[in-house]
Amino acid sequence: MDYQNLLAERTEGMAASAIREILKVVSLPGMISLAGGIPAPQSFPMEIIEELTSVVLHKYGSRAFQYDLTEGFMPLRSALVDHLKQKGIAATSDQIIISSGSQGALDAIGKILISKGDKIAVESPTYLGALQAFNPYEPTYIGMETDDDGLIPESLDEVLKHHKIKFVYLVPTFQNPTGRTLPLERRKQIAEILKRHDALLFEDDPYGDLRYQGTSLPSIQSMAPDHVVYAGTLSKVFAPGLRVGYLIGPDLIRDWLVLSKQGVDLQTSTFTQALAAEYLAGGYLKDHLPRIIELYRPRQQAMLNAMETHFPKEFNWSRPQGGMFIWAEGPSGFDLDSAYKKAIQRNVAFVPGRYFFAQSDAGLETMRLNFTMFEEQTLVNAIAVLGQVLHEELCSN
Amino acid sequence: MDYQNLLAERTEGMAASAIREILKVVSLPGMISLAGGIPAPQSFPMEIIEELTSVVLHKYGSRAFQYDLTEGFMPLRSALVDHLKQKGIAATSDQIIISSGSQGALDAIGKILISKGDKIAVESPTYLGALQAFNPYEPTYIGMETDDDGLIPESLDEVLKHHKIKFVYLVPTFQNPTGRTLPLERRKQIAEILKRHDALLFEDDPYGDLRYQGTSLPSIQSMAPDHVVYAGTLSKVFAPGLRVGYLIGPDLIRDWLVLSKQGVDLQTSTFTQALAAEYLAGGYLKDHLPRIIELYRPRQQAMLNAMETHFPKEFNWSRPQGGMFIWAEGPSGFDLDSAYKKAIQRNVAFVPGRYFFAQSDAGLETMRLNFTMFEEQTLVNAIAVLGQVLHEELCSN
Repeated sequence: MDYQNLLAERTEGMAASAIREILKVVSLPGMISLAGGIPAPQSFPMEIIEELTSVVLHKYGSRAFQYDLTEGFMPLRSALVDHLKQKGIAATSDQIIISSGSQGALDAIGKILISKGDKIAVESPTYLGALQAFNPYEPTYIGMETDDDGLIPESLDEVLKHHKIKFVYLVPTFQNPTGRTLPLERRKQIAEILKRHDALLFEDDPYGDLRYQGTSLPSIQSMAPDHVVYAGTLSKVFAPGLRVGYLIGPDLIRDWLVLSKQGVDLQTSTFTQALAAEYLAGGYLKDHLPRIIELYRPRQQAMLNAMETHFPKEFNWSRPQGGMFIWAEGPSGFDLDSAYKKAIQRNVAFVPGRYFFAQSDAGLETMRLNFTMFEEQTLVNAIAVLGQVLHEELCSN
Repeated sequence: MDYQNLLAERTEGMAASAIREILKVVSLPGMISLAGGIPAPQSFPMEIIEELTSVVLHKYGSRAFQYDLTEGFMPLRSALVDHLKQKGIAATSDQIIISSGSQGALDAIGKILISKGDKIAVESPTYLGALQAFNPYEPTYIGMETDDDGLIPESLDEVLKHHKIKFVYLVPTFQNPTGRTLPLERRKQIAEILKRHDALLFEDDPYGDLRYQGTSLPSIQSMAPDHVVYAGTLSKVFAPGLRVGYLIGPDLIRDWLVLSKQGVDLQTSTFTQALAAEYLAGGYLKDHLPRIIELYRPRQQAMLNAMETHFPKEFNWSRPQGGMFIWAEGPSGFDLDSAYKKAIQRNVAFVPGRYFFAQSDAGLETMRLNFTMFEEQTLVNAIAVLGQVLHEELCSN
C-alpha cells in the first residue's frame, strides 16, 4: 500500500538528516570518532549503581515498578529541590516535572507552544537535538548572533523587537556545539531583556555540572524565574541510559507540560527515577562528580594542546571551561564537508558544524570536536591526523 | 506574563479532562477504587527483578547505562522475535521498535500520520489513552459500531467506504474499556476489509497475555502484515514502571516512527530494556504469567458473581475471558454520572463510561469496572455498594 500518502504534513520536517548517516559511518570498526556527544562509559558509577539498585528494591519494593504520577516520582522531585538549591534555583517539589531525558523536555515545550509558522529564537549555531524536537511542530527559526562568549544580548533584543517570538532557546553553559558559556554580565542583560519584552526562555542546562576550571555561574532562571523554563538532566553526570531529566517553569506552563507528557509517555520509568532519587538524596553525586571531572579535564587539555600543535594557524577554536565539545572555525569559504570525507578515509571522524545551524547555508567552515570518549594519546593522534587533513585542504584551495 | 497567549493551537485539545479529577478523588484514603486500570503490585515478580538487575549489571555492565539505538536495545529486540513468534507474529529484530510503553507507540503513530482534521476510525467506546495521545495532533474521530463481540466488521467497511481514513485504531483483545474480544471470524473479516480498502490498522494489544479462559486468538497483524502496525507492552505482564513497549509495522512506517521517536525521547531507558530482554530471553515470563493469571482470575470471577447477585436486572455487562475490565450498561437514559457521585460518597469509585467515547454525548448509561487491584472479598463488598446505588438511582427516576 501507499504508505507515503498516509504521512502527516509535519512528518516531512523529520526527514532523515545527513547527521544520522555520519553517526553510522563513525561507528565503523577502527574509526576514532570525535563526532559523538556521549559520556565515557568509564564515567558511569557502576559500583554505586549496583548499590543503589539494591537500596531501591528494599526501600521502595513494588512501588518502584508501579505506575506513578505523570509529574514524576515524588522522592526524586524532593531530592531535586536540594540539588537545584545548590545551583541557586529555588523550586518546590510541586514545581518540578521529571522528563524522559532532556529530549523529553524539548519535545514537551515544542508540543505545547509551537503552532505551524510560530517563531522560535535560537543561537547560531544551536543544539541539533532541539531542532529535531521542534521541527515536527513546524516552527520558523530566527537565528541570533553569537561570539566567543555565546549569545550577543543585543541580538536577542533586536530579535524580540522585530519578531513575535514564542520562546527563546538557549544553552547558556558549555553550549552544544560550541562549548561557549555566557558570562555573568550577559546573563543579567538577557534576564533584563526577557523581562522588558515579556518573553519566555527555554534554558537548557545539560552540561553545567561538568566544569573543569573557573567558578560556576547562576542560571538565567534564577534572575527571571517567571520568564524561564529551566531543564536539566542526569544524563551527563549519572548515566544517560536511565533517561531522567527534569524541568521547572511558571505554573501554567508546567501544567500544560504535564498534560502533554501524559499523552506522550504517561510517565518516565519509575525504577530509573527511584535510582536517580537515591543517587541525589544519598549524596553520591558529590563523590562521583569530581571523578568525572578528573576523567574529562585532561582529555580536553590534551585535545586543546594538540590543536595548538597541529591545526593550521588559519583556524580558531573555543577553549571552554567545561562540557564535552570544542568548536573550531576555518577561514571563510573553507569547506569542512570536503575535509570530513578525507578525514574518515583516515579513520578520524567529527561533525561538520553546518548541521548545527537552523539556516541551511551557514557554518560550512565550522566543525565540532568531542573529547570525552577517548584517552589522551588517542585524542592527540586523532588531532594530528585532522591537522594534516586541514593543512592539505587549505593548500589545495 | 501572559502564558496563555503563548500556547499552540493544538494545546487546547489537551485540556484537562474530567477523568483526571476522577482519578484524584479515587486516591483518597478509604476509597475502594474500581476506577483504575493498573496491575496489582503483588503481580510484580520482585524476586525475579532482583535477580535480573544483578544479571544485567554483570552481563552488560556500562552498556546498560549508555546511550543506545533509538530503535531499541538489540538484545531486547532479539528476545521479542521469539516472544512474538509464540503469538504467531513473524518479525525480524530489525522490524521491531522499542517504545516508552504503549503510550509512546500511540504518540508516535499519531505524530507521523495525523495532520489537523485527518480522520481516524475508532471503536465506540475506545481506549482513553489513545485519544489523549492523538488529540494534540487534532484529528477528527469517526466512531465505529460495536457489540458484545467488539467491532462490527460491516461498520468498518462502511466507514472506509465513505471516509478517507488515515488509520483505524483497535484493541482487539480484552479491550479497554469493555473487556470485549474480537472472535476469529471477525478478525479474518477485518483483515480482508483492510486489504480491500488498502487501509492501515493500529492494533493495540496490551492485554492479550492476560487470558483466564478459552484459547488465544491470532492477531489481525498476522493476517494482514502490510496493513497493520502492531503494538505490545510489558506493562501488564512484567511491570509498568519499566515503561517498555514495542511495535512492529511495514518498513516505511517504521522508519518514520524511529525518526519521530528520536525527537521525542531519543530512546527508551537502556537499563529497563536490558531488564526486559533478560526477562524474556531467560524464560521468566513463562513461569511468571501463570501466577498473574491465578491472581486475577478469581478476582474477575468474584466481581462477576457479585454483579449477578447485586446489580439491577436492567443492567447488562461483559463477561470477558481475560484482561482487566468489565463493562456495564444500564437502561437507555440512565445517568451513571449521578450514580458515580453517590458511589464515591460511600467510598466506592469507578469510571463513568462516557469518557471512553470520542463523541461527547454518548455512553452516559455505561461504566467501567476494574477488578485487578483488590482481593475478592473487597470486590464483593464494593459491588454490593454499587448495586445498592444503582437500584436507588433506578427507583428515583
